[in-house]
Amino acid sequence: MTKVIEKQTGAAFRIKKGQRLKVTDPEGQQVSDMVLFNAEDKREKISSGKTLDFEESILISSGNFLWSNRSRKMMEILEDTNGRNDFLLAPCSPETFQIMYNNPDYHPSCFENLYTNLRQFDIEPDDVPTAFNIFMNVQFDKNGKLSVDPPLSKAGDFVLFEAKMDLIVALTACSAEDSNNGSFKPIHYEVTD
Amino acid sequence: MTKVIEKQTGAAFRIKKGQRLKVTDPEGQQVSDMVLFNAEDKREKISSGKTLDFEESILISSGNFLWSNRSRKMMEILEDTNGRNDFLLAPCSPETFQIMYNNPDYHPSCFENLYTNLRQFDIEPDDVPTAFNIFMNVQFDKNGKLSVDPPLSKAGDFVLFEAKMDLIVALTACSAEDSNNGSFKPIHYEVTD
Repeated sequence: MTKVIEKQTGAAFRIKKGQRLKVTDPEGQQVSDMVLFNAEDKREKISSGKTLDFEESILISSGNFLWSNRSRKMMEILEDTNGRNDFLLAPCSPETFQIMYNNPDYHPSCFENLYTNLRQFDIEPDDVPTAFNIFMNVQFDKNGKLSVDPPLSKAGDFVLFEAKMDLIVALTACSAEDSNNGSFKPIHYEVTD
Repeated sequence: MTKVIEKQTGAAFRIKKGQRLKVTDPEGQQVSDMVLFNAEDKREKISSGKTLDFEESILISSGNFLWSNRSRKMMEILEDTNGRNDFLLAPCSPETFQIMYNNPDYHPSCFENLYTNLRQFDIEPDDVPTAFNIFMNVQFDKNGKLSVDPPLSKAGDFVLFEAKMDLIVALTACSAEDSNNGSFKPIHYEVTD
């Protein structure tokens, strides 16, 4: 059954080893930040540094695995109809909007939407790692300069993951203007056996 | 006073806000993995994802700051005579050698040298984040493919940091063959006011 993450919100849930998670961009040009924790021991979690090291690539897509800080496979990417994701940048947080957007007012953020949804699993804000940012289009040049560009995803694009261990998953529908071309939209997801 | 980190070992120590840390490659082509923790609250620590986001670059050198998971500046890089460092890859760990080097035997690692030295500060292995890898030469192409190449650092090259808060610092003299062109060498460091 497809579940809806409304714009600028998030969700967290358990999935079992072997189950599949499909994350869909229903309208196009929307990003979903995803973090993973071992459901049996939440101190094991998704690691950008370990994933980029073992997969030997900045860009992570079909055929790649998402690895934990304990060097174990958490998920495999079975299919990726868009093909562009980011695993460099931390989730947007209140400070992202204050420092980078020069906006001192309250702004919803992926960081808040991750930790508020993870609270039910006793996972605290400081425990939230760098997320795998599905559909996020971060371009880099040969000098390493980064730019956050509008997502290349079109309506209906999806990424299909298979869990390699029992997991707690948190997902967002991203709240940052630069990440989704200034239009906040929902994200859909579905867990299947 | 210059302190020596012998080959394939590490060190951890406190420095105060405003103090400077100089990390030197005395013989050339050696890497030093560095992690940082807020000395007053060890749940605040260096974050690759926040640093790359705020500095808008994969490559971090003179003039850049190292940021924490709480979006605060931990260090400023005042000088970098070599100019190439890595902030993508997790510290080499026992699994690095098992999985990437296909070596099932015991091998010293930066991860072990970080957490054993951090134990005196009650920091556990699971708390060790992706390190700022001083002098590490990780090249990337436009498709994101990564390769760990011999460091470009020459004997006497150094990076000079200034602490922006009271810190616990851990440093290594890297244990991975690919990172230092197959020759294990020491690292020198000095803390000054």
